[in-house]
Amino acid sequence: MRTEQDSLGEMQIPADALYGIHTLRAYNNFRISYVPVSDFPELVRAMAMVKKAAAIANCKLGVLPKSKADPIQAACDELIAGKHHDAFIVDMIQGGAGTSTNMNANEVIANLALKRMGHGLADYDHLHPNDDVNKSQSTNDVYPTALRLAILLNMQSLTAEHRRLCEAFEAKATEFDGIPKVGRTQLQDAVPMTLGQEFRSFANTIEEDIDRLQDVSKLLLEVNLGGTAIGTGVNTPANYTDVAVAQLMQVSGFPVRAARNLVEASSDLGAFVAFSGILKRVAVKLSKICNDLRLLSSGPRSGIGEIKLPAVQAGSSIMPGKVNPVIPEVVNQVAYQVIGNDLTVTMAAEAGQLQLNAMEPVAIFNILQSIRILKRAMACLTDRCVVGIEADQERCTYLLENSLALATSLVPQIGYEKAAKVAKHALNNGLSVPEALAALGITADLTSAA
Amino acid sequence: MRTEQDSLGEMQIPADALYGIHTLRAYNNFRISYVPVSDFPELVRAMAMVKKAAAIANCKLGVLPKSKADPIQAACDELIAGKHHDAFIVDMIQGGAGTSTNMNANEVIANLALKRMGHGLADYDHLHPNDDVNKSQSTNDVYPTALRLAILLNMQSLTAEHRRLCEAFEAKATEFDGIPKVGRTQLQDAVPMTLGQEFRSFANTIEEDIDRLQDVSKLLLEVNLGGTAIGTGVNTPANYTDVAVAQLMQVSGFPVRAARNLVEASSDLGAFVAFSGILKRVAVKLSKICNDLRLLSSGPRSGIGEIKLPAVQAGSSIMPGKVNPVIPEVVNQVAYQVIGNDLTVTMAAEAGQLQLNAMEPVAIFNILQSIRILKRAMACLTDRCVVGIEADQERCTYLLENSLALATSLVPQIGYEKAAKVAKHALNNGLSVPEALAALGITADLTSAA
Amino acid sequence: MRTEQDSLGEMQIPADALYGIHTLRAYNNFRISYVPVSDFPELVRAMAMVKKAAAIANCKLGVLPKSKADPIQAACDELIAGKHHDAFIVDMIQGGAGTSTNMNANEVIANLALKRMGHGLADYDHLHPNDDVNKSQSTNDVYPTALRLAILLNMQSLTAEHRRLCEAFEAKATEFDGIPKVGRTQLQDAVPMTLGQEFRSFANTIEEDIDRLQDVSKLLLEVNLGGTAIGTGVNTPANYTDVAVAQLMQVSGFPVRAARNLVEASSDLGAFVAFSGILKRVAVKLSKICNDLRLLSSGPRSGIGEIKLPAVQAGSSIMPGKVNPVIPEVVNQVAYQVIGNDLTVTMAAEAGQLQLNAMEPVAIFNILQSIRILKRAMACLTDRCVVGIEADQERCTYLLENSLALATSLVPQIGYEKAAKVAKHALNNGLSVPEALAALGITADLTSAA
Amino acid sequence: MRTEQDSLGEMQIPADALYGIHTLRAYNNFRISYVPVSDFPELVRAMAMVKKAAAIANCKLGVLPKSKADPIQAACDELIAGKHHDAFIVDMIQGGAGTSTNMNANEVIANLALKRMGHGLADYDHLHPNDDVNKSQSTNDVYPTALRLAILLNMQSLTAEHRRLCEAFEAKATEFDGIPKVGRTQLQDAVPMTLGQEFRSFANTIEEDIDRLQDVSKLLLEVNLGGTAIGTGVNTPANYTDVAVAQLMQVSGFPVRAARNLVEASSDLGAFVAFSGILKRVAVKLSKICNDLRLLSSGPRSGIGEIKLPAVQAGSSIMPGKVNPVIPEVVNQVAYQVIGNDLTVTMAAEAGQLQLNAMEPVAIFNILQSIRILKRAMACLTDRCVVGIEADQERCTYLLENSLALATSLVPQIGYEKAAKVAKHALNNGLSVPEALAALGITADLTSAA
Repeated sequence: MRTEQDSLGEMQIPADALYGIHTLRAYNNFRISYVPVSDFPELVRAMAMVKKAAAIANCKLGVLPKSKADPIQAACDELIAGKHHDAFIVDMIQGGAGTSTNMNANEVIANLALKRMGHGLADYDHLHPNDDVNKSQSTNDVYPTALRLAILLNMQSLTAEHRRLCEAFEAKATEFDGIPKVGRTQLQDAVPMTLGQEFRSFANTIEEDIDRLQDVSKLLLEVNLGGTAIGTGVNTPANYTDVAVAQLMQVSGFPVRAARNLVEASSDLGAFVAFSGILKRVAVKLSKICNDLRLLSSGPRSGIGEIKLPAVQAGSSIMPGKVNPVIPEVVNQVAYQVIGNDLTVTMAAEAGQLQLNAMEPVAIFNILQSIRILKRAMACLTDRCVVGIEADQERCTYLLENSLALATSLVPQIGYEKAAKVAKHALNNGLSVPEALAALGITADLTSAA
Repeated sequence: MRTEQDSLGEMQIPADALYGIHTLRAYNNFRISYVPVSDFPELVRAMAMVKKAAAIANCKLGVLPKSKADPIQAACDELIAGKHHDAFIVDMIQGGAGTSTNMNANEVIANLALKRMGHGLADYDHLHPNDDVNKSQSTNDVYPTALRLAILLNMQSLTAEHRRLCEAFEAKATEFDGIPKVGRTQLQDAVPMTLGQEFRSFANTIEEDIDRLQDVSKLLLEVNLGGTAIGTGVNTPANYTDVAVAQLMQVSGFPVRAARNLVEASSDLGAFVAFSGILKRVAVKLSKICNDLRLLSSGPRSGIGEIKLPAVQAGSSIMPGKVNPVIPEVVNQVAYQVIGNDLTVTMAAEAGQLQLNAMEPVAIFNILQSIRILKRAMACLTDRCVVGIEADQERCTYLLENSLALATSLVPQIGYEKAAKVAKHALNNGLSVPEALAALGITADLTSAA
Repeated sequence: MRTEQDSLGEMQIPADALYGIHTLRAYNNFRISYVPVSDFPELVRAMAMVKKAAAIANCKLGVLPKSKADPIQAACDELIAGKHHDAFIVDMIQGGAGTSTNMNANEVIANLALKRMGHGLADYDHLHPNDDVNKSQSTNDVYPTALRLAILLNMQSLTAEHRRLCEAFEAKATEFDGIPKVGRTQLQDAVPMTLGQEFRSFANTIEEDIDRLQDVSKLLLEVNLGGTAIGTGVNTPANYTDVAVAQLMQVSGFPVRAARNLVEASSDLGAFVAFSGILKRVAVKLSKICNDLRLLSSGPRSGIGEIKLPAVQAGSSIMPGKVNPVIPEVVNQVAYQVIGNDLTVTMAAEAGQLQLNAMEPVAIFNILQSIRILKRAMACLTDRCVVGIEADQERCTYLLENSLALATSLVPQIGYEKAAKVAKHALNNGLSVPEALAALGITADLTSAA
Repeated sequence: MRTEQDSLGEMQIPADALYGIHTLRAYNNFRISYVPVSDFPELVRAMAMVKKAAAIANCKLGVLPKSKADPIQAACDELIAGKHHDAFIVDMIQGGAGTSTNMNANEVIANLALKRMGHGLADYDHLHPNDDVNKSQSTNDVYPTALRLAILLNMQSLTAEHRRLCEAFEAKATEFDGIPKVGRTQLQDAVPMTLGQEFRSFANTIEEDIDRLQDVSKLLLEVNLGGTAIGTGVNTPANYTDVAVAQLMQVSGFPVRAARNLVEASSDLGAFVAFSGILKRVAVKLSKICNDLRLLSSGPRSGIGEIKLPAVQAGSSIMPGKVNPVIPEVVNQVAYQVIGNDLTVTMAAEAGQLQLNAMEPVAIFNILQSIRILKRAMACLTDRCVVGIEADQERCTYLLENSLALATSLVPQIGYEKAAKVAKHALNNGLSVPEALAALGITADLTSAA
């Protein structure tokens, strides 16, 4: 063990720990979710990107010597490459507006840099977590900036899963284009369509969400880096924001830009609320689609049964041979989780006060979780369900022919009221539409239907 | 017009208005929902009950002369009887923690009393809205007390509709007891049951909610009357709380009691959160039931079609003869509204600060609305849907016989794995369970099934 | 009274009623919110615009004679001009996916047209609500299209109120630019800023919401007109969608366009979810701002007290002279309502099934309500609060000078740890930062601070 | 590796795995939250209790030989004792209504029993997961029963933390009873109270929640054990429910009882909705209290500053000496998470269909998580914040004496309107109440105040 101290006193730290006393205090203070920051590598990488950009900017602007800036950058590069993440031990749900995550990063980076410089761990006289790694920075600009990057780092893989799901539905739509079936509104037989049209609407509705996510993610490119404590840029050298943001663009590869008003940007979670709101929209659509898949595959004999979902496991511990729509069901549940998470984000955003929002940690925790489970749920839906869906063409045809869906096409010919009589007569007497027309002595052309 | 004045200056009031300057200022300040307090007569009556109890208590305790207490009581009685409610013009959504509703009541009661005393409207020298009608009171104890009463005043009619719906389902359960059908889990055919059992579970689940509402409404009997501004009872005579609460019990007929800690009770909306949470539970159950009714009546030919809902209007502007499950649909929507309203109540409750919760008005607005639309929705569901539901016994029988629901009953005889093979063979080859048993050369007794 | 009939039988209708039997049945079926469609004139106008566009398209395409199309258009023009709205009596919360609102419109327009044609009310042989007014239409394309228009019709006035509020904050920011004060994070004194900066961040954050609302409202320009029952365009003449949408653009003045996939567009509420999500964001920001206004004006003596809100009414029925922040409080409550409403919209959207979402009525009811109360709340906040806010410059200065906000500016000079000692020493001994520096014998330049 | 097979084919299983093929399929199917069932030991223990009770009942009723029942019981006892939980690998969020958790339990118990019987793992001919361990059971009665037990198993420790927090506040209340201060409503100075009263209201409001949780947890004692697939008890011997429930009472120590209607109980999540609703209430109250603690400790110099929270870590990476209210902040965030989780539970409950609710897994996941983080948050609040709170008596006294809180006590003597003038005069001229009285030449006795 080694000893470190801060304004509250001394603590014993494991001798080889890359983190330091501030991290350990926070770890002890926030034993809440037991989900450490390391569980979200994109957040660690994002923090490191911001720290690297700051170090370069500080060096360029002459407030941090190259002898310190270089090892800091190298340390950040290790984190960006995915190394040493297990040193990020603080809980994702933490008080203090992210200070603990920031101090965890400061301490790990300082110690990694000290090692490179040939010094011992915690030998902070040579390179200090606050004075050097955190130079020109505050949690209040660094953390929100990193949160934005962490989400952006997820976008590519999220979009990829979104697109795979979209394509899986599109492929099924093409496969099912030639299968006529009854369309239903309000769970009641309506008018004819094809199964292909039904699946294409799934594909298209998902495709739109890809665009919406792209749109809303652009809001995250606006960062408050350089604002430090409250957006006024206290303790930063002249031009720091411009230089640091330009560096962050290079380091991250994202076209980030400084917010117009850094004071406003320090306390506002509007971009997170908007982003989470679109995640919610994605969840709503996936849930609707999964509800439809479960309805369409209901049966196997006493339901609609127009499609068959692939069996991926035995359905029941008591009912032999039962195969359940377990994949859509798990996606429904993910949707409910994402909708609940969105409420948590909303409440956290509303709780901002004056120059800061101290509730950012729970907001980003919920957003990153929602992204993660949506990604996994979509992969699961694509690979374990959609690609294996089969149509029961015979059933589709039977239900369509047996239905009264043709009655609507009579309206332009014989009018709404007379057509209603035909439909009612058919239903009450177990007849088809042509039979009912004949029985009532009405002449109409049915070839134009569907 | 007459002139009134307060510490902000003078205003013109319609000459015959029962309300006064405080009410008019509030009316002008809060042009939000355009739903006046008068739209909820139970709230006006509840306010009047509290004011009456306070006047009696003040008189008994010697701080209000009988010459004032009597006309105040008489005025309250008029309001309790449903008169003059149109003088309650302030918006249900108002700032100020209910002060405007309280001042509206104080002014209307003062003016009604002044008329009885032979004085002119607004002749407050003879009887003052604050000094006399509001004596020993603050909005902060009077308003929350009245909110509780307003909910309690709704309980009888809410329970009555609840019970009517329960009985309608119970009657249908009895009617349908002899109709065997396939039970379904996860929208897949499971094992046999009767349609009566299905409807009895609707009846029973609703019955439980009646008990839950009764239980939770008891929390509302605890009032903070006498606590005045912050629960410390400032400006009340000795024993005021005891006497006033005892009077309120007599006036209202509810066994109200003083909260143990009036300071706590002044700011806490816990009872409202709990009550609204049970309304949400009621909504969740009604929505589930209505979803089931829509599923079971899906068709008429290409769905489950085991029951028929009564047709209450033409279903479609384009599709002749289409009859839609519009009554369950409207109940679903009411459920979503109630669930949304519960969130509003939750947020309002969370926003209490220090010795008061200033957000009570929006909380009570949402609770009273939820009660109201739930009541109406249940009446609508009972009268326009449930009582007219018909079973399609033929369809129930056909689906059951055609199903593989008997396979489960094989398990105790031939084991899960062999029974699974039978079910799979039947499904893949379009056979019934007995046929599949025969085809696979397995012997089993099916008479015990169902 | 006159007699009308439909497939369910006959009903008596008030002789001079512009609505007909379908409307009356729906009115009787849905006694839920008691808020009629007429309460939202923008929805009536939107329905009329769609009906007018359809009539023109039908006439151009040769399926509706000019002799009928002309009076239909004229009838629509009357509704667009705000006349006869009281004939829209059906409840905003209704089952049937909007069919009742559509039939209400069909019947009112038919009867207005019949009058113009010189026929009696309900003389539908000459012009029929379904066969003529509703020609080439279904509720399922007409209603969602009108819902979009109804929102768009609100955008101008919503934006106007948004902008007025933004400008009011901006004006205050300019007024307060020269007033230094302490900035606060986590309710703790942080570093110096100006009151102008604080108010400018309110202005800017609201300004961003104006942009977000503009962006998201563009999603509403995509309509499913011409899709009829399920998006397949059953019962429409060739090119109907193109012609009808072009007409709708002219009639409405909005650059509407046909959705790419009309089947998808028939059941999807994604645009509503996204729009409501941004309304929620607006609510979250307004609530945060109002929380800040209440914090900053807390006191008058035992709180922060840096600003004074204008007194708009007496604050208390018991505490003389108390002036409460009632306007921000009412805006907070509106925010909670909008957040609750967004949940209702979310649940309604998730409940879509197969080719339709039957829960649209409650979704649009909540969105239009949210728009309406947000508009009113912003007007109220602007006119009754923000424009009259006064700074207490003396108090701002006192608190800043008394604070330890200068300690942060020491960090670049003496390092984080030494600066922490200074701050701690000052706090524990009731000293100012310069005094603590002196007491500890540390030299630093404080002129660069703030 | 060993080979197992089911109706879908063969799979390779790690040779020493206690789970089997059904578990592994489920593990592969549901890669969602990555939180395995083993992460909630109370759920594993609850499943084992149910399985043990069922085995005893089956043995007593003659459908399971003692030679099998005994090793099954012994296996269950190992799980109840906390062993082998790592074999519960399936994801907490799973499709299939809990079937995978049930099969995981069946397989682990079967293999533990087989080992005791001297057989090899997966030698299911001697003891079968479905035919023996799951005898007379279905996921649909076993899983919901276990979910209830899992919550009940948490109640003791949840209540203990609740009570510790209550007592900590009560102790502070006693400590602070002699400290007069200004009470505040709507963040405005109101009337006098003591700091002890303020803290006692925290203690009392929490105490009430303990009662509410106890009340609502009683709903969980009603189980559907014996209902099997849909509540009709298919494949159970006569009297099974009675015997099994009686055994479960013994095994678990909880006074469980059979639900009145097992069909209803199979699909209804009402008890979970009610329980989660009370967890939400707890969250709302904790959040309100933490908001108050942060308000009261705001400063240190430019806020209210009546109390000091203990410093548990350095507050800022940039602002030296800053100590933030990080513990209340983390509790606020937990509250938002619990409120969001409640929405997820609500949506899951609403999604039940016909004879089952397939969404139970996400519901229980959220409830158990909410319980867990509430427990931890309360422990954190008690130990790291409340016990160390100090009053700033000097500040309390200063603010009270400086305030206008005495004006209210003038009302009974000089009337509301005159008292309002006094208060206004004092405020506008920087006077105290006695000074203002003198200045206006009004005589009143102030000794009775407070």
